[in-house]
Amino acid sequence: MSFLENLNWRYATKKFDGQKVPEQILEKILEAIRLTPSSFGIQPYRIVVVEGSESRERLNAHAFWDQEQIKTCSHLLIFCVDSNIRERANDYVALASSIGRQDITDDPKFDYEKEAVEFGEKMGAEWTAKQLYIALGFALAACAELKVDSCPMEAANFTAIKQVLALAENLEPKVLLPIGYRSADDAHAQDKKVRFSKEDLFDLK
Amino acid sequence: MSFLENLNWRYATKKFDGQKVPEQILEKILEAIRLTPSSFGIQPYRIVVVEGSESRERLNAHAFWDQEQIKTCSHLLIFCVDSNIRERANDYVALASSIGRQDITDDPKFDYEKEAVEFGEKMGAEWTAKQLYIALGFALAACAELKVDSCPMEAANFTAIKQVLALAENLEPKVLLPIGYRSADDAHAQDKKVRFSKEDLFDLK
Repeated sequence: MSFLENLNWRYATKKFDGQKVPEQILEKILEAIRLTPSSFGIQPYRIVVVEGSESRERLNAHAFWDQEQIKTCSHLLIFCVDSNIRERANDYVALASSIGRQDITDDPKFDYEKEAVEFGEKMGAEWTAKQLYIALGFALAACAELKVDSCPMEAANFTAIKQVLALAENLEPKVLLPIGYRSADDAHAQDKKVRFSKEDLFDLK
Repeated sequence: MSFLENLNWRYATKKFDGQKVPEQILEKILEAIRLTPSSFGIQPYRIVVVEGSESRERLNAHAFWDQEQIKTCSHLLIFCVDSNIRERANDYVALASSIGRQDITDDPKFDYEKEAVEFGEKMGAEWTAKQLYIALGFALAACAELKVDSCPMEAANFTAIKQVLALAENLEPKVLLPIGYRSADDAHAQDKKVRFSKEDLFDLK
Protein backbone atom coordinates (compact mmCIF):
# COMPACT_ATOMS: atom_id res chain seq x y z
CA MET A 1 0.00 0.00 0.00
CA SER A 2 1.27 3.45 -0.79
CA PHE A 3 1.97 6.21 1.71
CA LEU A 4 -1.16 8.11 0.61
CA GLU A 5 -3.34 5.01 0.82
CA ASN A 6 -2.08 4.47 4.35
CA LEU A 7 -2.89 8.06 5.28
CA ASN A 8 -6.37 7.51 3.87
CA TRP A 9 -6.69 4.26 5.83
CA ARG A 10 -6.03 5.92 9.18
CA TYR A 11 -8.77 7.69 11.12
CA ALA A 12 -9.30 8.96 14.66
CA THR A 13 -9.99 5.57 16.19
CA LYS A 14 -12.63 5.88 18.89
CA LYS A 15 -12.41 2.32 20.19
CA PHE A 16 -9.50 -0.10 20.11
CA ASP A 17 -9.69 -3.89 20.47
CA GLY A 18 -7.13 -4.18 23.26
CA GLN A 19 -4.61 -6.09 21.15
CA LYS A 20 -1.02 -5.12 21.97
CA VAL A 21 1.23 -3.35 19.48
CA PRO A 22 4.28 -5.67 19.25
CA GLU A 23 7.48 -4.36 20.76
CA GLN A 24 9.30 -4.16 17.41
CA ILE A 25 6.48 -2.12 15.87
CA LEU A 26 6.37 0.25 18.84
CA GLU A 27 10.13 0.69 18.49
CA LYS A 28 9.67 1.80 14.88
CA ILE A 29 7.05 4.38 15.85
CA LEU A 30 9.35 5.76 18.56
CA GLU A 31 12.24 5.81 16.08
CA ALA A 32 10.15 7.88 13.62
CA ILE A 33 9.43 10.34 16.44
CA ARG A 34 13.12 10.40 17.32
CA LEU A 35 14.01 11.25 13.71
CA THR A 36 11.62 14.23 13.62
CA PRO A 37 13.35 17.48 12.70
CA SER A 38 12.94 20.46 15.00
CA SER A 39 13.99 24.08 15.10
CA PHE A 40 17.75 24.20 15.77
CA GLY A 41 17.46 20.43 16.20
CA ILE A 42 16.94 20.70 19.95
CA GLN A 43 13.82 18.47 20.14
CA PRO A 44 12.33 20.38 23.10
CA TYR A 45 10.07 17.58 24.29
CA ARG A 46 9.74 14.26 26.04
CA ILE A 47 7.21 11.54 25.32
CA VAL A 48 5.83 9.36 28.10
CA VAL A 49 4.69 5.91 26.95
CA VAL A 50 2.14 4.26 29.24
CA GLU A 51 1.19 0.63 28.72
CA GLY A 52 -0.46 -0.67 31.90
CA SER A 53 -4.27 -0.59 32.02
CA GLU A 54 -4.42 0.75 35.57
CA SER A 55 -2.24 3.73 34.71
CA ARG A 56 -4.32 4.35 31.59
CA GLU A 57 -7.56 4.22 33.60
CA ARG A 58 -6.14 6.75 36.05
CA LEU A 59 -5.18 9.08 33.18
CA ASN A 60 -8.49 8.58 31.41
CA ALA A 61 -10.25 10.14 34.39
CA HIS A 62 -8.69 13.45 33.26
CA ALA A 63 -9.64 13.23 29.57
CA PHE A 64 -12.88 14.95 28.65
CA TRP A 65 -16.12 13.42 27.38
CA ASP A 66 -15.39 9.94 28.86
CA GLN A 67 -14.44 8.29 25.58
CA GLU A 68 -13.10 4.75 25.12
CA GLN A 69 -9.77 5.28 23.37
CA ILE A 70 -7.48 5.45 26.38
CA LYS A 71 -9.13 2.53 28.13
CA THR A 72 -9.02 0.22 25.11
CA CYS A 73 -5.72 1.13 23.44
CA SER A 74 -2.44 -0.77 23.53
CA HIS A 75 -0.13 2.09 24.52
CA LEU A 76 -0.82 5.70 25.41
CA LEU A 77 1.78 8.21 24.26
CA ILE A 78 1.78 11.50 26.14
CA PHE A 79 3.58 14.25 24.24
CA CYS A 80 5.12 16.84 26.59
CA VAL A 81 6.97 20.04 25.75
CA ASP A 82 10.22 20.76 27.58
CA SER A 83 10.37 24.47 28.37
CA ASN A 84 14.00 24.34 29.48
CA ILE A 85 15.40 25.64 26.19
CA ARG A 86 18.78 26.56 27.67
CA GLU A 87 19.48 23.05 28.88
CA ARG A 88 18.18 21.53 25.65
CA ALA A 89 20.41 23.78 23.52
CA ASN A 90 23.37 23.07 25.77
CA ASP A 91 22.80 19.31 25.57
CA TYR A 92 22.34 19.55 21.80
CA VAL A 93 25.69 21.24 21.24
CA ALA A 94 27.36 18.70 23.54
CA LEU A 95 25.76 15.91 21.52
CA ALA A 96 26.83 17.51 18.22
CA SER A 97 30.35 17.81 19.59
CA SER A 98 30.39 14.15 20.63
CA ILE A 99 29.73 13.04 17.05
CA GLY A 100 32.17 15.47 15.46
CA ARG A 101 29.76 18.01 13.99
CA GLN A 102 32.27 20.84 14.00
CA ASP A 103 30.14 22.87 11.62
CA ILE A 104 27.76 23.28 14.58
CA THR A 105 30.24 23.60 17.41
CA ASP A 106 33.09 25.54 15.85
CA ASP A 107 31.53 28.13 13.53
CA PRO A 108 33.28 31.40 14.45
CA LYS A 109 30.45 33.43 12.85
CA PHE A 110 27.52 31.63 14.49
CA ASP A 111 27.33 30.76 18.18
CA TYR A 112 24.82 27.95 17.73
CA GLU A 113 23.82 27.53 21.36
CA LYS A 114 23.37 31.26 21.92
CA GLU A 115 21.36 31.65 18.70
CA ALA A 116 19.12 28.68 19.56
CA VAL A 117 18.38 30.02 23.05
CA GLU A 118 17.74 33.55 21.81
CA PHE A 119 15.49 32.35 18.99
CA GLY A 120 13.55 29.97 21.22
CA GLU A 121 13.06 32.58 23.94
CA LYS A 122 11.97 35.18 21.40
CA MET A 123 9.45 32.76 19.84
CA GLY A 124 7.99 31.79 23.22
CA ALA A 125 5.90 28.84 24.40
CA GLU A 126 4.11 28.47 21.05
CA TRP A 127 7.43 27.56 19.49
CA THR A 128 8.13 24.55 21.71
CA ALA A 129 4.54 23.36 21.25
CA LYS A 130 4.92 23.62 17.47
CA GLN A 131 8.07 21.49 17.49
CA LEU A 132 6.20 18.89 19.53
CA TYR A 133 3.47 18.78 16.93
CA ILE A 134 5.88 18.03 14.09
CA ALA A 135 6.77 14.96 16.16
CA LEU A 136 3.06 14.21 16.56
CA GLY A 137 2.74 14.38 12.77
CA PHE A 138 5.63 11.94 12.35
CA ALA A 139 4.06 9.61 14.93
CA LEU A 140 0.72 9.65 13.11
CA ALA A 141 2.33 9.04 9.72
CA ALA A 142 4.49 6.23 11.14
CA CYS A 143 1.45 4.57 12.73
CA ALA A 144 -0.39 4.71 9.39
CA GLU A 145 2.60 3.19 7.57
CA LEU A 146 2.76 0.37 10.12
CA LYS A 147 -1.02 -0.15 10.09
CA VAL A 148 -1.33 0.83 13.71
CA ASP A 149 -4.40 2.86 14.64
CA SER A 150 -4.21 6.07 16.61
CA CYS A 151 -6.30 8.95 17.90
CA PRO A 152 -4.75 12.29 18.86
CA MET A 153 -6.58 13.83 21.84
CA GLU A 154 -6.19 17.39 23.08
CA ALA A 155 -9.29 17.62 25.26
CA ALA A 156 -8.01 16.78 28.72
CA ASN A 157 -7.05 18.32 32.03
CA PHE A 158 -3.32 18.42 31.46
CA THR A 159 -2.61 20.00 34.83
CA ALA A 160 -4.06 16.89 36.47
CA ILE A 161 -2.23 14.60 34.01
CA LYS A 162 1.05 16.31 34.84
CA GLN A 163 0.40 15.53 38.52
CA VAL A 164 -0.58 11.91 37.91
CA LEU A 165 2.61 11.35 35.92
CA ALA A 166 4.68 13.31 38.47
CA LEU A 167 6.35 15.18 35.62
CA ALA A 168 9.27 17.53 36.19
CA GLU A 169 8.40 21.22 36.41
CA ASN A 170 9.79 21.96 32.92
CA LEU A 171 7.61 19.34 31.19
CA GLU A 172 4.05 20.17 30.10
CA PRO A 173 1.84 17.49 28.54
CA LYS A 174 0.03 18.84 25.48
CA VAL A 175 -1.53 15.97 23.58
CA LEU A 176 -2.42 12.32 24.14
CA LEU A 177 -1.95 9.66 21.48
CA PRO A 178 -3.52 6.29 22.21
CA ILE A 179 -2.33 3.68 19.70
CA GLY A 180 -3.45 0.12 19.01
CA TYR A 181 -5.82 -1.67 16.68
CA ARG A 182 -9.35 -0.58 15.79
CA SER A 183 -12.18 -2.50 17.36
CA ALA A 184 -14.41 -4.33 14.87
CA ASP A 185 -17.38 -2.49 16.36
CA ASP A 186 -15.94 1.02 16.11
CA ALA A 187 -18.66 2.51 13.92
CA HIS A 188 -16.37 5.38 12.93
CA ALA A 189 -14.03 3.09 10.98
CA GLN A 190 -16.44 3.26 8.05
CA ASP A 191 -17.02 7.01 8.19
CA LYS A 192 -16.27 9.03 5.10
CA LYS A 193 -13.25 11.21 5.78
CA VAL A 194 -14.06 14.92 6.03
CA ARG A 195 -11.27 17.03 4.54
CA PHE A 196 -11.36 20.41 2.87
CA SER A 197 -10.69 20.42 -0.85
CA LYS A 198 -7.39 21.10 -2.50
CA GLU A 199 -8.79 24.42 -3.71
CA ASP A 200 -9.74 25.40 -0.21
CA LEU A 201 -6.40 24.50 1.36
CA PHE A 202 -3.85 25.57 -1.23
CA ASP A 203 -3.10 28.75 -3.06
CA LEU A 204 -0.94 27.89 -6.06
CA LYS A 205 0.97 30.96 -7.21
CA MET B 1 13.34 1.77 1.02
CA SER B 2 11.45 1.68 4.27
CA PHE B 3 9.69 4.60 5.91
CA LEU B 4 12.39 4.88 8.59
CA GLU B 5 15.18 4.71 6.02
CA ASN B 6 13.49 7.55 4.16
CA LEU B 7 13.23 9.61 7.35
CA ASN B 8 16.94 8.97 7.88
CA TRP B 9 17.69 9.97 4.30
CA ARG B 10 16.07 13.38 4.65
CA TYR B 11 17.92 16.36 6.14
CA ALA B 12 17.49 20.12 6.28
CA THR B 13 18.70 20.78 2.75
CA LYS B 14 20.67 24.01 2.62
CA LYS B 15 21.10 24.16 -1.14
CA PHE B 16 18.92 22.73 -3.89
CA ASP B 17 19.95 22.05 -7.49
CA GLY B 18 17.08 23.95 -9.10
CA GLN B 19 15.51 20.85 -10.67
CA LYS B 20 11.71 21.02 -10.67
CA VAL B 21 9.56 18.65 -8.61
CA PRO B 22 7.25 17.06 -11.22
CA GLU B 23 3.60 18.05 -11.06
CA GLN B 24 2.41 14.57 -10.08
CA ILE B 25 4.90 14.37 -7.20
CA LEU B 26 3.91 17.82 -5.94
CA GLU B 27 0.27 16.70 -6.07
CA LYS B 28 1.08 13.76 -3.78
CA ILE B 29 2.79 16.02 -1.25
CA LEU B 30 -0.22 18.35 -1.24
CA GLU B 31 -2.56 15.38 -0.89
CA ALA B 32 -0.61 14.17 2.18
CA ILE B 33 -1.02 17.64 3.69
CA ARG B 34 -4.71 17.59 2.83
CA LEU B 35 -5.15 14.25 4.64
CA THR B 36 -3.56 15.57 7.84
CA PRO B 37 -5.83 15.20 10.86
CA SER B 38 -6.56 18.28 12.97
CA SER B 39 -8.45 19.13 16.12
CA PHE B 40 -12.17 18.88 15.35
CA GLY B 41 -11.09 18.30 11.76
CA ILE B 42 -11.29 21.98 10.90
CA GLN B 43 -7.82 22.30 9.30
CA PRO B 44 -7.37 25.93 10.38
CA TYR B 45 -4.76 26.80 7.79
CA ARG B 46 -3.93 27.59 4.20
CA ILE B 47 -0.75 26.78 2.33
CA VAL B 48 0.60 29.08 -0.35
CA VAL B 49 2.73 27.34 -2.98
CA VAL B 50 5.15 29.62 -4.83
CA GLU B 51 7.02 28.36 -7.87
CA GLY B 52 8.36 31.34 -9.81
CA SER B 53 11.95 32.39 -9.10
CA GLU B 54 11.14 36.10 -8.99
CA SER B 55 8.51 35.61 -6.31
CA ARG B 56 10.88 33.37 -4.36
CA GLU B 57 13.64 35.99 -4.55
CA ARG B 58 11.25 38.64 -3.25
CA LEU B 59 10.28 36.39 -0.32
CA ASN B 60 13.88 35.40 0.36
CA ALA B 61 14.67 39.02 1.15
CA HIS B 62 12.59 38.52 4.32
CA ALA B 63 14.19 35.26 5.48
CA PHE B 64 17.05 35.65 7.95
CA TRP B 65 20.74 34.84 7.50
CA ASP B 66 20.60 35.06 3.68
CA GLN B 67 20.64 31.32 3.02
CA GLU B 68 20.30 29.59 -0.36
CA GLN B 69 17.30 27.30 0.12
CA ILE B 70 14.54 29.61 -1.10
CA LYS B 71 16.52 30.84 -4.10
CA THR B 72 17.50 27.36 -5.29
CA CYS B 73 14.42 25.25 -4.47
CA SER B 74 11.74 24.01 -6.87
CA HIS B 75 8.67 25.18 -4.92
CA LEU B 76 8.31 27.18 -1.73
CA LEU B 77 5.42 26.17 0.52
CA ILE B 78 4.31 28.84 2.98
CA PHE B 79 2.26 27.40 5.84
CA CYS B 80 -0.24 29.92 7.22
CA VAL B 81 -2.64 29.59 10.15
CA ASP B 82 -6.22 30.72 9.66
CA SER B 83 -7.40 32.42 12.83
CA ASN B 84 -11.03 32.56 11.72
CA ILE B 85 -12.10 29.52 13.74
CA ARG B 86 -15.81 30.34 13.53
CA GLU B 87 -15.85 30.31 9.73
CA ARG B 88 -13.67 27.19 9.61
CA ALA B 89 -15.98 25.31 11.99
CA ASN B 90 -19.02 26.49 10.09
CA ASP B 91 -17.54 25.40 6.76
CA TYR B 92 -16.51 22.07 8.28
CA VAL B 93 -20.02 21.22 9.45
CA ALA B 94 -21.40 22.24 6.05
CA LEU B 95 -18.84 19.96 4.38
CA ALA B 96 -19.67 17.08 6.74
CA SER B 97 -23.35 17.61 5.97
CA SER B 98 -22.69 17.55 2.22
CA ILE B 99 -21.16 14.05 2.44
CA GLY B 100 -23.80 12.67 4.78
CA ARG B 101 -21.85 12.60 8.04
CA GLN B 102 -24.93 12.81 10.25
CA ASP B 103 -22.97 11.65 13.29
CA ILE B 104 -21.31 15.08 13.14
CA THR B 105 -24.25 17.21 12.06
CA ASP B 106 -27.17 15.61 13.90
CA ASP B 107 -25.90 14.56 17.32
CA PRO B 108 -28.50 15.91 19.77
CA LYS B 109 -26.01 15.66 22.66
CA PHE B 110 -23.08 17.39 20.97
CA ASP B 111 -23.32 20.65 19.02
CA TYR B 112 -20.18 20.04 16.97
CA GLU B 113 -19.77 23.54 15.58
CA LYS B 114 -20.32 25.21 18.95
CA GLU B 115 -17.93 22.81 20.71
CA ALA B 116 -15.24 23.31 18.07
CA VAL B 117 -15.46 27.10 18.30
CA GLU B 118 -15.48 27.10 22.11
CA PHE B 119 -12.56 24.67 22.30
CA GLY B 120 -10.52 26.55 19.70
CA GLU B 121 -11.14 29.92 21.34
CA LYS B 122 -10.27 28.56 24.77
CA MET B 123 -7.03 27.04 23.47
CA GLY B 124 -5.98 30.26 21.73
CA ALA B 125 -3.49 31.04 18.98
CA GLU B 126 -1.11 28.26 20.01
CA TRP B 127 -3.80 25.75 19.08
CA THR B 128 -4.12 26.80 15.43
CA ALA B 129 -0.34 26.90 15.13
CA LYS B 130 -0.08 23.36 16.51
CA GLN B 131 -2.59 22.06 13.98
CA LEU B 132 -0.54 23.67 11.22
CA TYR B 133 2.56 21.88 12.43
CA ILE B 134 0.94 18.45 12.23
CA ALA B 135 0.46 19.32 8.56
CA LEU B 136 4.11 20.36 8.38
CA GLY B 137 5.02 16.95 9.81
CA PHE B 138 2.94 15.20 7.16
CA ALA B 139 4.55 17.34 4.45
CA LEU B 140 8.05 16.46 5.66
CA ALA B 141 7.24 12.74 5.90
CA ALA B 142 5.62 12.78 2.45
CA CYS B 143 8.63 14.52 0.93
CA ALA B 144 10.94 11.88 2.45
CA GLU B 145 8.76 9.06 1.10
CA LEU B 146 8.86 10.62 -2.36
CA LYS B 147 12.59 11.35 -2.20
CA VAL B 148 12.00 15.07 -2.38
CA ASP B 149 14.28 17.22 -0.25
CA SER B 150 12.99 19.91 2.05
CA CYS B 151 14.06 22.41 4.69
CA PRO B 152 11.61 23.86 7.22
CA MET B 153 12.47 27.49 8.01
CA GLU B 154 11.03 29.55 10.86
CA ALA B 155 13.54 32.36 10.89
CA ALA B 156 11.93 35.05 8.78
CA ASN B 157 10.07 38.33 8.97
CA PHE B 158 6.58 36.93 8.59
CA THR B 159 4.93 40.34 8.84
CA ALA B 160 6.76 41.33 5.67
CA ILE B 161 6.02 37.97 4.03
CA LYS B 162 2.32 38.44 4.76
CA GLN B 163 2.48 41.79 2.97
CA VAL B 164 4.40 40.46 -0.04
CA LEU B 165 1.83 37.68 -0.46
CA ALA B 166 -1.06 40.10 0.17
CA LEU B 167 -2.61 37.57 2.53
CA ALA B 168 -6.06 38.05 4.02
CA GLU B 169 -6.17 39.49 7.54
CA ASN B 170 -7.04 36.11 9.12
CA LEU B 171 -4.03 34.31 7.62
CA GLU B 172 -0.64 34.38 9.37
CA PRO B 173 2.38 32.72 7.76
CA LYS B 174 4.33 30.69 10.33
CA VAL B 175 6.84 28.50 8.55
CA LEU B 176 8.45 28.21 5.13
CA LEU B 177 9.13 24.89 3.43
CA PRO B 178 11.29 25.02 0.32
CA ILE B 179 11.24 21.67 -1.48
CA GLY B 180 13.28 20.30 -4.37
CA TYR B 181 16.38 18.22 -4.89
CA ARG B 182 19.64 18.54 -2.97
CA SER B 183 22.55 20.14 -4.76
CA ALA B 184 25.56 17.88 -5.28
CA ASP B 185 27.68 20.49 -3.52
CA ASP B 186 25.50 20.88 -0.42
CA ALA B 187 28.13 19.91 2.15
CA HIS B 188 25.42 19.23 4.73
CA ALA B 189 24.09 16.22 2.82
CA GLN B 190 26.86 14.12 4.36
CA ASP B 191 26.47 15.43 7.92
CA LYS B 192 25.81 12.93 10.66
CA LYS B 193 22.27 13.45 11.92
CA VAL B 194 22.12 14.90 15.43
CA ARG B 195 19.21 13.42 17.40
CA PHE B 196 18.77 12.83 21.09
CA SER B 197 18.80 9.20 22.18
CA LYS B 198 15.76 7.06 22.78
CA GLU B 199 16.51 7.19 26.51
CA ASP B 200 16.58 10.96 26.45
CA LEU B 201 13.33 11.36 24.52
CA PHE B 202 11.09 8.62 25.90
CA ASP B 203 9.93 7.64 29.32
CA LEU B 204 8.60 4.08 29.11
CA LYS B 205 6.23 3.40 31.99
